[in-house]
Amino acid sequence: MSAYANAIPMKNVKIRDSFWSPVQETVRTRMIPYQWEALNDRIPGADPSFCIRNFKIAAGREQGTFGGFVFQDSDLAKWLEAVAYTLAVHKDPELEREADEAIELICAAQRPDGYMDTYYILNGIDKRFTNLKDNHELYCLGHMTEAAVAYYEATGKERLLRAVVRCVDLVDSLIGPEKGKIHGYPGHEVLEMALVRLYRVTKKEKHLRLACYFINERGKEPLFFETVRKENGQPMGGDRAGRNRYHQADRPVREQTEAEGHAVRAVYLYSGMADVAKETGDASLTDACRRLWTDMTHRQMYVTGGIGSTHHGEAFSYDYDLPNDTAYAETCASVGLVFFARRMLELDPRAEYADEMERALYNGVLSGMTLDGERFFYVNPLEVSPEASEKEEDHRHVRPERQKWFGCACCPPNLARLAASLGGYVGMVSGNTLYQNLYVGGTAAARVGGTEVRTELRSGYPWNGEISVSMHLESARRFAYALRVPGWCRGFSLLLNGEKASFRMDRGYAVVDREWQDGDTVRLSLEMPVRRVFASPRVREDVGKVAVMRGPLVYCLEEADNGPGLPRVFLPDGAEFSERQADGLPENIVALTSEGRKISAAEGAQEDLYTDRVPSAEPCTLTWIPYYAWANRSCGEMTVWVHRML
Amino acid sequence: MSAYANAIPMKNVKIRDSFWSPVQETVRTRMIPYQWEALNDRIPGADPSFCIRNFKIAAGREQGTFGGFVFQDSDLAKWLEAVAYTLAVHKDPELEREADEAIELICAAQRPDGYMDTYYILNGIDKRFTNLKDNHELYCLGHMTEAAVAYYEATGKERLLRAVVRCVDLVDSLIGPEKGKIHGYPGHEVLEMALVRLYRVTKKEKHLRLACYFINERGKEPLFFETVRKENGQPMGGDRAGRNRYHQADRPVREQTEAEGHAVRAVYLYSGMADVAKETGDASLTDACRRLWTDMTHRQMYVTGGIGSTHHGEAFSYDYDLPNDTAYAETCASVGLVFFARRMLELDPRAEYADEMERALYNGVLSGMTLDGERFFYVNPLEVSPEASEKEEDHRHVRPERQKWFGCACCPPNLARLAASLGGYVGMVSGNTLYQNLYVGGTAAARVGGTEVRTELRSGYPWNGEISVSMHLESARRFAYALRVPGWCRGFSLLLNGEKASFRMDRGYAVVDREWQDGDTVRLSLEMPVRRVFASPRVREDVGKVAVMRGPLVYCLEEADNGPGLPRVFLPDGAEFSERQADGLPENIVALTSEGRKISAAEGAQEDLYTDRVPSAEPCTLTWIPYYAWANRSCGEMTVWVHRML
Repeated sequence: MSAYANAIPMKNVKIRDSFWSPVQETVRTRMIPYQWEALNDRIPGADPSFCIRNFKIAAGREQGTFGGFVFQDSDLAKWLEAVAYTLAVHKDPELEREADEAIELICAAQRPDGYMDTYYILNGIDKRFTNLKDNHELYCLGHMTEAAVAYYEATGKERLLRAVVRCVDLVDSLIGPEKGKIHGYPGHEVLEMALVRLYRVTKKEKHLRLACYFINERGKEPLFFETVRKENGQPMGGDRAGRNRYHQADRPVREQTEAEGHAVRAVYLYSGMADVAKETGDASLTDACRRLWTDMTHRQMYVTGGIGSTHHGEAFSYDYDLPNDTAYAETCASVGLVFFARRMLELDPRAEYADEMERALYNGVLSGMTLDGERFFYVNPLEVSPEASEKEEDHRHVRPERQKWFGCACCPPNLARLAASLGGYVGMVSGNTLYQNLYVGGTAAARVGGTEVRTELRSGYPWNGEISVSMHLESARRFAYALRVPGWCRGFSLLLNGEKASFRMDRGYAVVDREWQDGDTVRLSLEMPVRRVFASPRVREDVGKVAVMRGPLVYCLEEADNGPGLPRVFLPDGAEFSERQADGLPENIVALTSEGRKISAAEGAQEDLYTDRVPSAEPCTLTWIPYYAWANRSCGEMTVWVHRML
Repeated sequence: MSAYANAIPMKNVKIRDSFWSPVQETVRTRMIPYQWEALNDRIPGADPSFCIRNFKIAAGREQGTFGGFVFQDSDLAKWLEAVAYTLAVHKDPELEREADEAIELICAAQRPDGYMDTYYILNGIDKRFTNLKDNHELYCLGHMTEAAVAYYEATGKERLLRAVVRCVDLVDSLIGPEKGKIHGYPGHEVLEMALVRLYRVTKKEKHLRLACYFINERGKEPLFFETVRKENGQPMGGDRAGRNRYHQADRPVREQTEAEGHAVRAVYLYSGMADVAKETGDASLTDACRRLWTDMTHRQMYVTGGIGSTHHGEAFSYDYDLPNDTAYAETCASVGLVFFARRMLELDPRAEYADEMERALYNGVLSGMTLDGERFFYVNPLEVSPEASEKEEDHRHVRPERQKWFGCACCPPNLARLAASLGGYVGMVSGNTLYQNLYVGGTAAARVGGTEVRTELRSGYPWNGEISVSMHLESARRFAYALRVPGWCRGFSLLLNGEKASFRMDRGYAVVDREWQDGDTVRLSLEMPVRRVFASPRVREDVGKVAVMRGPLVYCLEEADNGPGLPRVFLPDGAEFSERQADGLPENIVALTSEGRKISAAEGAQEDLYTDRVPSAEPCTLTWIPYYAWANRSCGEMTVWVHRML
């Protein structure tokens, strides 16, 4: 029997959590309707999406030409996927009707042979599948496949699923190892993991086989993208490896050891690799996933869980190159990191994967939206100067305020679908063990060791580390309950029915292995003091600096609380922190204050730029807020890393 | 009588200096011949220049099409100017013959109406003067004018001067305030200062008038470059001010308060403004020069005298934005800063102008060449990681090693012409006062207060602050000798004929006002300890950091001496420095050692990227070398600013 774990499906999880339920409610009541308006080009002052319009034109319901990017269809797919997750846990006939109509529109636009992509339908279907590298039709199909499976699982409706299967089967008939087929793979990955998900529903081997083909073919010599390049008469010189590295296609995936290229593509690929590894039991693929995970999280990840540090190609740059002020750290990339983390947990239950999943969720993912869910960050910097964003070309991608919408609107619906499906990330089962990966309040039902177990979790997370879990089961049964002890936690206690619990530590989990009775209650108390965090000294941008964390949350300084000049702020090593509320933020948010120092900047044109005078720092009071909550008040400076005291 | 000062002409200055004479000798014996080879496309492995070839084709001596940039002619002009300065102080018949031949070639290419620019001669002369903004023909003419005057002054030969005057007069007939003329000005400034220089030789008012016109017309509404844009049917929207700011043409020059746009253009313009201000006595123009000087040197200059911090447009960015690792700090821009500084000194003798002139000369200018004068930096960063230069797009302009030559080869000949004409920067005369601005050894002859004075200066500068000056004059005469006390100097003594001298301080100069006798000797001893220098706290990149200077020299750490990982190095506040010699550098160079600390970077993939463990720094010995001498050994890291000790 496989040692792999299976995540508890989100439909079996009901989230009732003081932190995440409002986020999910925001997604349901604000983001999803707002994004629907955006997809229909009805947000005043925002870039038009053209997305629904493209489908209408393709369906013959409107006249016009294709608008937006080649991957515009994917925005509707991601919206539908988020809707599906929402409907799975919250009936909403009006929303379901809207989604059904959108699906009808998609099906009306589909060609008789199953082809679905509106870009090629409107721009010349004879050109389809000729530019897999750049034109995203397999990417759009991947997202549509995820949406179709999610919608089917949520509603039981097969309309979109059948449509997608026809298109997948069309792709399968044209791309593959057989002679006469295209020996290619997606330029922007996602179809790989979507196909595994489809396979889990259809049980059709060919769907898994196509996923395996994409994974195994990628980066093999002769490189497919180079072959196409040659056929198109494009120049063959230059940095051959570099241009294929952008697509993670310079070497076979099992030979890739460093996270490279476009960050979102990368984590989507790695997620697909992990899915295929799990379905096929392929140890070499699991090893590759582990290596890539380690490189990414140990050498190329911000403390916020942001990945892809450079805006040039929205890409990984190189080990330990993590500039704070020009960070890209796309919201989508952190979302993808969460996908990959869950899959690594399923391959190999180790708390460290859940630690990074949690890091990304509570910081680099959640920072992608305002507290009201109506404005979004694409880029999630760790240091912001509005003046630099305005005046310095290299900082222009760093926005000091969230935007209404984007021409390339991948991030908002990606955040929405992850937040709506959060239930699918809280726990998993492997054999006789039930794993608790996230401390999100609510109930989860799972079959463990032959019996139905329902857990009911309450916690004050992430504001405090008090967690209680009640077990509900029909009859007493022995199994193991593994509670993650977060990597950030330096001390905890575990009670069972009020008594000190007996447990063993295994790969970062506190495992209580016993015969459980209905009504048993576990109480986990995680110490959650404010912590100073230091980056590896190889991260040159963070040498001499410190970040502040409390539990899973990264904190930051914002101009709204601390005035301008944040780069001149120092945190004394001995400064103590106390909790408080920040002005203008919801009262449930725990802010912190500490003593600090700030070098005052003298005014006046004649002040010397360089001087022998030793700069002196004045005492000041610093107010720290959770990173995810920054830029919800006025536009101003922000920083995560501050200088340690002189 | 005017209070303006006049620089002692370089032809009256004979440099005999242990620091600069070898540089001048390198320019004469290596750079000038090397650059001649480069202009003739004879450097193996270097980008071809096409410069001489363009002239040959234009002269009908070769067949072919124009090669290189639109401003390629200027490289020959700058080479000729450097040759002229060299010939002025060092007879070299062979070199003079080569230069004469080049001048014959230029004259052979000149059109009958006086027009000279090979780009338009070869690409359609009907298009000439239609794109003053981008196509650099007035820029090339500016450099040719400077070369012509320099060559005339050095050799008495009028061939090029006459040719240039014909071309200037052609321009004068086509551009100007009169109806029917083009109401324009150069897109890349330099002709302004060249015309003033020409006027000083020709004494023709129209040459000064044209310079005044360019200065006064610039930035006036309706903006000339916008008018041309409109005529060419180019889009008129976008950032109108921004695109004109690049050329310092968004506002009249007297209303400009911040150094802005392309840095080289800017300092060339300001130099021209200062020249016109001096010739016309225009106080409002002098005031504008002062404001721009102050903004530039007090808010936008690196500690090395580098200016223009961003590679986007090779431009100034905004006040206090001085990143070390992505610095542009073009060699030409520092050369231009020296030009501007000398002109400010002439307008208003204040030692502070000479301080910055000295800073640029000994650091940001001289770093532009290897010690052997055969390889060059275009960009002069203050922090280098070869890995970043290789892998990070934003750092790609920062080269860790000097290059053989450049397609756009403005910097090497610019450095050559400045070094060769250094004599023109050492001193000046205003009324009855002889000013000593630089402590470069040698003799200088000047007429002061009605008599001929010859000074003979010896110094160990920049390695020590011992300076002695002997006065030679035909008969005793009262005048003031003003010795600059550098801004970096915290203590000095001044002896006259071995006795404590009587002097007053005036605007940064120690002024000895007395009746001088032939043979009088002044001895100035400037204390020159190693100094820690701090940047304004508004420079966010340098907060918590320190730079090391000794006398005028900025020091740096290089991997060759200190190993890799320079961003992890700290300098304790109390660390003491001692002098030593650096391995692999000429023995005259004073290197420094000090105690330091370095955080060791643990090896191994599993090391946590973020940790609660306080990083600890180990003691180490640091070796500091003068910044100008970096990158003369192996390719590696370098940094000027280091962390102060934790």
